[in-house]
Amino acid sequence: MIVRPDQHWFKRLFVWHGSVLSEILFRLSLNLGMSVIALLCFQWYEALGIKLTLAPFSLLGVAIAIFLGFRNSVSYARFTEARGLWGSLLIVNRSLLRQIRSIFPHRPELAKEFAALQIAFSYCLKHQLRGTSMRKELTHFLPHENIDKLMASAAPCNGILLLMGEWLGERRQAGEISDILFQSIDENLNKLSAVLAGCERIANTPIPFAYRLIVHRTVYLFCTLLPFALVPDLHYMTPFVSVFISYTFISLDALAEELEDPFGTAPNDLPLDAMCKTIEINLLEMNNAAEIPVRPLPDKRYQLS
Amino acid sequence: MIVRPDQHWFKRLFVWHGSVLSEILFRLSLNLGMSVIALLCFQWYEALGIKLTLAPFSLLGVAIAIFLGFRNSVSYARFTEARGLWGSLLIVNRSLLRQIRSIFPHRPELAKEFAALQIAFSYCLKHQLRGTSMRKELTHFLPHENIDKLMASAAPCNGILLLMGEWLGERRQAGEISDILFQSIDENLNKLSAVLAGCERIANTPIPFAYRLIVHRTVYLFCTLLPFALVPDLHYMTPFVSVFISYTFISLDALAEELEDPFGTAPNDLPLDAMCKTIEINLLEMNNAAEIPVRPLPDKRYQLS
Amino acid sequence: MIVRPDQHWFKRLFVWHGSVLSEILFRLSLNLGMSVIALLCFQWYEALGIKLTLAPFSLLGVAIAIFLGFRNSVSYARFTEARGLWGSLLIVNRSLLRQIRSIFPHRPELAKEFAALQIAFSYCLKHQLRGTSMRKELTHFLPHENIDKLMASAAPCNGILLLMGEWLGERRQAGEISDILFQSIDENLNKLSAVLAGCERIANTPIPFAYRLIVHRTVYLFCTLLPFALVPDLHYMTPFVSVFISYTFISLDALAEELEDPFGTAPNDLPLDAMCKTIEINLLEMNNAAEIPVRPLPDKRYQLS
Amino acid sequence: MIVRPDQHWFKRLFVWHGSVLSEILFRLSLNLGMSVIALLCFQWYEALGIKLTLAPFSLLGVAIAIFLGFRNSVSYARFTEARGLWGSLLIVNRSLLRQIRSIFPHRPELAKEFAALQIAFSYCLKHQLRGTSMRKELTHFLPHENIDKLMASAAPCNGILLLMGEWLGERRQAGEISDILFQSIDENLNKLSAVLAGCERIANTPIPFAYRLIVHRTVYLFCTLLPFALVPDLHYMTPFVSVFISYTFISLDALAEELEDPFGTAPNDLPLDAMCKTIEINLLEMNNAAEIPVRPLPDKRYQLS
Amino acid sequence: MIVRPDQHWFKRLFVWHGSVLSEILFRLSLNLGMSVIALLCFQWYEALGIKLTLAPFSLLGVAIAIFLGFRNSVSYARFTEARGLWGSLLIVNRSLLRQIRSIFPHRPELAKEFAALQIAFSYCLKHQLRGTSMRKELTHFLPHENIDKLMASAAPCNGILLLMGEWLGERRQAGEISDILFQSIDENLNKLSAVLAGCERIANTPIPFAYRLIVHRTVYLFCTLLPFALVPDLHYMTPFVSVFISYTFISLDALAEELEDPFGTAPNDLPLDAMCKTIEINLLEMNNAAEIPVRPLPDKRYQLS
Repeated sequence: MIVRPDQHWFKRLFVWHGSVLSEILFRLSLNLGMSVIALLCFQWYEALGIKLTLAPFSLLGVAIAIFLGFRNSVSYARFTEARGLWGSLLIVNRSLLRQIRSIFPHRPELAKEFAALQIAFSYCLKHQLRGTSMRKELTHFLPHENIDKLMASAAPCNGILLLMGEWLGERRQAGEISDILFQSIDENLNKLSAVLAGCERIANTPIPFAYRLIVHRTVYLFCTLLPFALVPDLHYMTPFVSVFISYTFISLDALAEELEDPFGTAPNDLPLDAMCKTIEINLLEMNNAAEIPVRPLPDKRYQLS
Repeated sequence: MIVRPDQHWFKRLFVWHGSVLSEILFRLSLNLGMSVIALLCFQWYEALGIKLTLAPFSLLGVAIAIFLGFRNSVSYARFTEARGLWGSLLIVNRSLLRQIRSIFPHRPELAKEFAALQIAFSYCLKHQLRGTSMRKELTHFLPHENIDKLMASAAPCNGILLLMGEWLGERRQAGEISDILFQSIDENLNKLSAVLAGCERIANTPIPFAYRLIVHRTVYLFCTLLPFALVPDLHYMTPFVSVFISYTFISLDALAEELEDPFGTAPNDLPLDAMCKTIEINLLEMNNAAEIPVRPLPDKRYQLS
Repeated sequence: MIVRPDQHWFKRLFVWHGSVLSEILFRLSLNLGMSVIALLCFQWYEALGIKLTLAPFSLLGVAIAIFLGFRNSVSYARFTEARGLWGSLLIVNRSLLRQIRSIFPHRPELAKEFAALQIAFSYCLKHQLRGTSMRKELTHFLPHENIDKLMASAAPCNGILLLMGEWLGERRQAGEISDILFQSIDENLNKLSAVLAGCERIANTPIPFAYRLIVHRTVYLFCTLLPFALVPDLHYMTPFVSVFISYTFISLDALAEELEDPFGTAPNDLPLDAMCKTIEINLLEMNNAAEIPVRPLPDKRYQLS
Repeated sequence: MIVRPDQHWFKRLFVWHGSVLSEILFRLSLNLGMSVIALLCFQWYEALGIKLTLAPFSLLGVAIAIFLGFRNSVSYARFTEARGLWGSLLIVNRSLLRQIRSIFPHRPELAKEFAALQIAFSYCLKHQLRGTSMRKELTHFLPHENIDKLMASAAPCNGILLLMGEWLGERRQAGEISDILFQSIDENLNKLSAVLAGCERIANTPIPFAYRLIVHRTVYLFCTLLPFALVPDLHYMTPFVSVFISYTFISLDALAEELEDPFGTAPNDLPLDAMCKTIEINLLEMNNAAEIPVRPLPDKRYQLS
Repeated sequence: MIVRPDQHWFKRLFVWHGSVLSEILFRLSLNLGMSVIALLCFQWYEALGIKLTLAPFSLLGVAIAIFLGFRNSVSYARFTEARGLWGSLLIVNRSLLRQIRSIFPHRPELAKEFAALQIAFSYCLKHQLRGTSMRKELTHFLPHENIDKLMASAAPCNGILLLMGEWLGERRQAGEISDILFQSIDENLNKLSAVLAGCERIANTPIPFAYRLIVHRTVYLFCTLLPFALVPDLHYMTPFVSVFISYTFISLDALAEELEDPFGTAPNDLPLDAMCKTIEINLLEMNNAAEIPVRPLPDKRYQLS
């Protein structure tokens, strides 16, 4: 079942929304400052011959909303794809272990060996994507000589996949599995490989920099100029309306920024720690392990890390 | 054939639309109240120097409509994916049983054993997704010792998949199926695994909280302020027009909220009870079972649970 | 080659467009009536203190256009998916028969037996989706005892698939095909199963009722109120412009309604009769059958049933 | 490497853009005529009590742009899918011949026989999609008796696939390939079958006629009425602005029309001639053929047929 | 971990954004010139009877934004698909080598031979897509006679695939692998073939020329005329607002142009050099090669070539 923040529509209007808010509060206060400046300048508008109307900003605002909408859907697509890949990781890991266990019903030690490689692969992927050190967590599952070799490699996750392949090759050489079963398990290794390369692709290929820049820049320039166009019509209401419009645009731009890199540790990113733990629990349970770690629970802000 | 609510375009304008309406009626009456307040305040506008025009709200309204449109398509995509996964569940279950039956044409008791596991899997998935107790329904299909073990597990559905895998492994060990047929059936077990993890993914990964929050908040703030901007132009027509515009925005926001979690029990959610029953009927019929449950029929509001 | 209605851009402006037009003509005349009422009321506007401007309707109109655009793309996606599934039905049927024929080059009677099951499956699917009686068409292809059993079943198409599976199992039991070829043909049966369940899913899961309702209702309310907002600006031009705008919104809403259920018999729905006939002709031709039915031709309104 | 028209942004503003332009020039001149009529009528507006403002047209224009945007994306999706299918055709053909060649390294005559069937299939598909006569091109690759039979068939491409299947069946009957390799090649035949049926689907299922009609009609009606709404504001500038806006809407509508049927011979359609030739060259080269046709080059308007 | 440009939201407003900026600076200065001309002309507007208002441009601007949004999503989809194909290239290459190594654990020389073909394939693909000379890089991995033959071929990458197929066929002929393993490896060769043809498809099929032309032309015409419509309202602010709006439209049009051809060497294109190097490093590492090239690092503008 889903663990979610409180759903009441009214309370939610005042609720905290993760890292996005803290980032944009400062920017909104800049916008508030701009509105005040606009209000102060307004008395000299006529003298200076300044004429600004809302009409061109209205056109521009809608255009920017369209582009920002596209920007958002692209960022969200990255987030969804990343989530789907980690979902596949769980699927394939369960399927692999189920295969091993139904092929070798009377040799639980083989399933244990292989599950250790699988769990190590998940943790390794998490650390590779976040750029953190994986040594500590890998020591629970792999012998030391393997870890040293993996740490030196440019692609440690792929190294673990190779270990799985070698394990499988040994079974085949020893005549324990036929070519058909070899191929069937190997196909699932290919799927793990696809998950790995998919995550690497998302992590290594940001949205084209120019695209993010153009949207980001036009959003901010638009919000900065807006008060000067609002003030002739709205007068003292300018700061209020200007901050509201800016909130809509700036917060979506900031969120798009955050979702774009789903493997980070910000509140709206994927809870990779919890996902790795889930995979570990699932595989250990399938092997009837004696000790099974407890399931990670969200903190009081409903966040999983 | 489809069982649908009455299709006449005119009657439909006045028809009930499930939980969404009851939820939003209160919110719309708040908006009506706001409109009345705006009407009352209007006489002091000039004295207070308040100037509000519709132009900035028009720009903002279109921007919010664009973002709300994206929000809707994301929620709907979750609903559609969830429906597709349950469709796959039906496909794979039929295919699996057809395989078993054509491989063992003279051993109907094997098909019966396996079908029990399949039906148990479907019910188990429903309960896992809704967070309800599965024990009662599982007792019809599984022996007690298995149920106790499953209830203690963190992933009971996956446990049933493992039982299927073991059943299959036994057939292979006993020499009743070749490695090729083993692989062929095992592939369908992998597909069940994919359905399971796909449903878990949808249930456990809500749309990023910040996204829902930003859209929700801007929609409500927009609807609250709208009457004050409408009143200088529309005067006594303000409440009427304001409630109409608010209805459009608020009802779509509320529906997006509801569709987002397709495994709930609200009227627009997926009828998991009926789907499980359909799978059960299909599999029992394929096995020429003596007693087949009746097909669930929609209630007088055309709703299936 | 494609059989299409006349393509000249000018003539097309005045051409008939299927069931949609007849349905909406009445609704547009209601709108015309509303415009006349608005014109008549206009003289009392000032006396009654009624003030209505186009600005809020402009904002609302764009918002509704965005939501209607989404509604359209969802309906069209259902139409496209349904068409794709029937395309797959043709693909898989051809592939299956090609397999049977290249595996048993010297036993044309086997290919004939199997093709009869395939054609029966297509017709059965058509009738199941449209809720019409399939008995008459099935008698050409299946023995009577099978038909009786299928008619009593809750899932007749799936029953035919089971017959195919049994046919295949018999070939394997008789040692006529190896496990590998069994698996290869069985995979195509799985694909037929996927087509079947995909069509059932589209037919049984309408777009969430609340969604259709909200869009439908706001479109009609919008069109009803529009003349009253147009009349202060346009005066005698009101009926003309109002009906034009209403035509754009109402016709798209009505078409979305029609496409949403692609298995119906309305002019813009899928020509299932013609598609079944095409599959029958293709399979009979592959078997060098003596008598092949003629290809269905579109009627004078370029419509296939 | 890509052969593309000149990319300079400035020159491109004045460049020819294929069939679309010639088709719409006449329509734009009609619009120009309408603008002149509007200008002439304008002096009697007051006398006739005609009041037309841009506001309702602005709302309508944005709504039409949204629907036209959807229309465009649907047409483009058809174009892209068609291109993808022809890409698959190349992939599968190469893979098939590579398989044949690595399975029979010492029997080049078999690869030659099979390649002839493959090339014939590609040309046959082109002619079937365009509705042109295939006899002449097929004579280079198939014996006469086969061609006569194919020409009489309702599905000639499928007939060639059947020939491939028979060729494969003969290899298996002769014991030259195992069931596994048979299955592996047969799978690629299934993929050819999918390409064929996919192309047939696109060719035979136009976008629902009512949809094209509604968008087409509203675009033209909108452009026809626009000058009358522009003239009170713009006066002598009306023809210029009206033709510009009409160009934007009408040219996109015309292009959507053209892309919708990607197998035609208009300048923006797929260059099927060149694609068939590419497949032929690729397969002949893989077989080390003595004579290889020259690659088709784009004409001076950068167009391939 | 990701190597990205500095993320601070404020600094980014002033940052360089690759080739797009240099290309559009000139175009924006033309727009600035237009604004000045509009300002100068304005005094004669009344005398000349010129009347231009923003309203029709507002309608047109939103329509163009919608079409430009679609243009952008199409270009970005090409970019994403190209990136996905190169991701698959990495996946399949790793999987292939893992297969070879687990099938022949005691014959590292075979894995070395095959890896050379794989690396050559990647470099060959890069050069084929960019239209640059591949001879120099291929000499490291292939014998001279093969290179000469490939250079003469119309499809050199496909030639390398054929070499892989022959290598595989030899293993099978020599009885070193069973038909099942042959098929399993051959399937991965099919996937390489799909990557190749997918890249060729993107490179050879630009977005329909008329589409790019229409959007490009309307964007530029719109930006050119805009100052003349802005000047009556904004007067001296015209150049500023006009350049801002033009920046939004022109930069997105230019970026769409750049992303459309993802295999170029512009700053926002795919870093094919780095990707080829990554594949090389990965495969050499899997083979425990003595010398492994260093990973390419982004230059000081965070760009990889």
